[in-house]
Amino acid sequence: MSELRRDPITGRWNIIDTDQPDGPEAFAQETSAVASGRCPFCYGNEAMTPPEIYVQRPAGGLPNGPGWTLRVISNKFPALKIEGDLNRRGIGVFDLCNGVGAHEVIIETPDHQRQMADFTHEELAAVLNAYKARSLDLRGDRRLKYTLIFKNYGLSSGASLEHSHSQLIALPIVPKRVQEELKGAERYFEFRDRCAFCDALQQELQEDERLVGENRSFVAYCPYVSSFPFEMWILPREHRADFAKMSQEATMDLARLMKEMLGRLRAALNNPPYNFILHTAPIEPREREEYHWHIELIPKLTKIAGFEWGTGFYINPTPPEVAAKFLRDARLVA
Amino acid sequence: MSELRRDPITGRWNIIDTDQPDGPEAFAQETSAVASGRCPFCYGNEAMTPPEIYVQRPAGGLPNGPGWTLRVISNKFPALKIEGDLNRRGIGVFDLCNGVGAHEVIIETPDHQRQMADFTHEELAAVLNAYKARSLDLRGDRRLKYTLIFKNYGLSSGASLEHSHSQLIALPIVPKRVQEELKGAERYFEFRDRCAFCDALQQELQEDERLVGENRSFVAYCPYVSSFPFEMWILPREHRADFAKMSQEATMDLARLMKEMLGRLRAALNNPPYNFILHTAPIEPREREEYHWHIELIPKLTKIAGFEWGTGFYINPTPPEVAAKFLRDARLVA
Repeated sequence: MSELRRDPITGRWNIIDTDQPDGPEAFAQETSAVASGRCPFCYGNEAMTPPEIYVQRPAGGLPNGPGWTLRVISNKFPALKIEGDLNRRGIGVFDLCNGVGAHEVIIETPDHQRQMADFTHEELAAVLNAYKARSLDLRGDRRLKYTLIFKNYGLSSGASLEHSHSQLIALPIVPKRVQEELKGAERYFEFRDRCAFCDALQQELQEDERLVGENRSFVAYCPYVSSFPFEMWILPREHRADFAKMSQEATMDLARLMKEMLGRLRAALNNPPYNFILHTAPIEPREREEYHWHIELIPKLTKIAGFEWGTGFYINPTPPEVAAKFLRDARLVA
Repeated sequence: MSELRRDPITGRWNIIDTDQPDGPEAFAQETSAVASGRCPFCYGNEAMTPPEIYVQRPAGGLPNGPGWTLRVISNKFPALKIEGDLNRRGIGVFDLCNGVGAHEVIIETPDHQRQMADFTHEELAAVLNAYKARSLDLRGDRRLKYTLIFKNYGLSSGASLEHSHSQLIALPIVPKRVQEELKGAERYFEFRDRCAFCDALQQELQEDERLVGENRSFVAYCPYVSSFPFEMWILPREHRADFAKMSQEATMDLARLMKEMLGRLRAALNNPPYNFILHTAPIEPREREEYHWHIELIPKLTKIAGFEWGTGFYINPTPPEVAAKFLRDARLVA
């Protein structure tokens, strides 16, 4: 069992792996971690992974056998585990609790070569549906307060396997960054009786300088206050707090826009590593008037250095106006 | 002039380089950035840098000529510039101001080969004295609210030149992360009438599990809530908010402990890249009862991925108890 430890000054929590600690030798070989022998996420290697929690197997077949198009499994090296009690406690000035939670892997395709930008709209919608289904299912567990879904693509984004996958981590606390966003949105709502994200979206649509793409349900743009070069956000046009309640129609629209944006990113920046993070409301209360869910897509192009660690400020060498133009002009391969 | 832009929801500021924007091509070659032809920080190449702001030239000599042992210059590619007005303004929901501030480089030695861990105690104390002198001098500028001093060592830590140097950035606002620390320390002080850092330090000394080294004035340890593997903090034993007011005796003690810690890091982890950040109180008010200055030393061993961006939580695979033992056991080269 790992430990969650809380900083008494900033209130930040960290997950500390007290079970299988890494010594110095673990960091020596890190750059070759993606290079792999037999891939546990490929067809026929199902026995190499923990059993499936959720699966899409359109032609039927036995659990943990072939025939699947998408699988969700527990992470083999989980940051948090679903068994056990939280056992919140203190040691002097410090607070800690047990590393209770869920850590799942969404294997998005059986095909080792295809990346998310190559998926059909239907395949991408299937991934989004898996995200929704797993989010909704985990809400039954009263210990869990927040579900984070994210994808690391490419070695320098933190991916350890190249086979296309994303991850879900469900946490027993609402993390600080999410709380910050929620509180900021609440403050804005109190002040203006409107959603801050809706207002920012309207302004982006009016100014039209940082937009990259849009369709009936979603808008993609490089936000005015981008922390990173070529950072993109995808927001639903309608004010909605909860990603998992998205309609099937909206899901298809999101799949279309995501495929286009991933294609533009790949074309403009020569297939860069990236992270995307799904920002959605905490599990309870289920509806928050103030919040507006969205996706943040961050290509990994710069390094985080002392200045950023010290301030929480980022130095962004590419204004979003410039980034958006490059992304709009990128030549998409059909 | 760059722009400082503020996120209306989280209140985070970013520095956006609207002057000389980087396009996609700027990110293609990044990995070879440290490899250098003629080094602008070496002896005899003084004309390649902006003129010196501060210098240590024990044997005398002309400004910007040879004979120096340490030079401070303006960054040739500054994130912020000292000229001009802040001009705080809004554009719809967004806030911005001009990129006014200081961005200086401390060239720590004329010798291209020697790194900070190789310095004598006197040389390291000279670097610390330069930090103090520059911090104190910039306090005369009423537009500036915070001075951050940090060092990026090695390519993956964000360093762009290998010649040993550190940086100073003075900002027109107190950055969010610093505010977070200050507020947390204030809350703790209100609750307990004691300094949170002093209490944490006492507990670290009592538990004795995460200590790495100590002397008369300073203690070095891997903090209980380490975000990163082998993270180390160096705290003054005495409760002091302001780094720049440190006595000459304390400066020598810090130089001794820093050299030892940098040596231990190098020995335990095979010369890893690292960042260190000097956390000190904002410029005004000059004395804060609640704050306790310190240095955070972070080797760059893991990658920041989607989970960390989404939550502000870190997953640390090496508990500080384990890291401290490896660091204590490291064989130091004399």
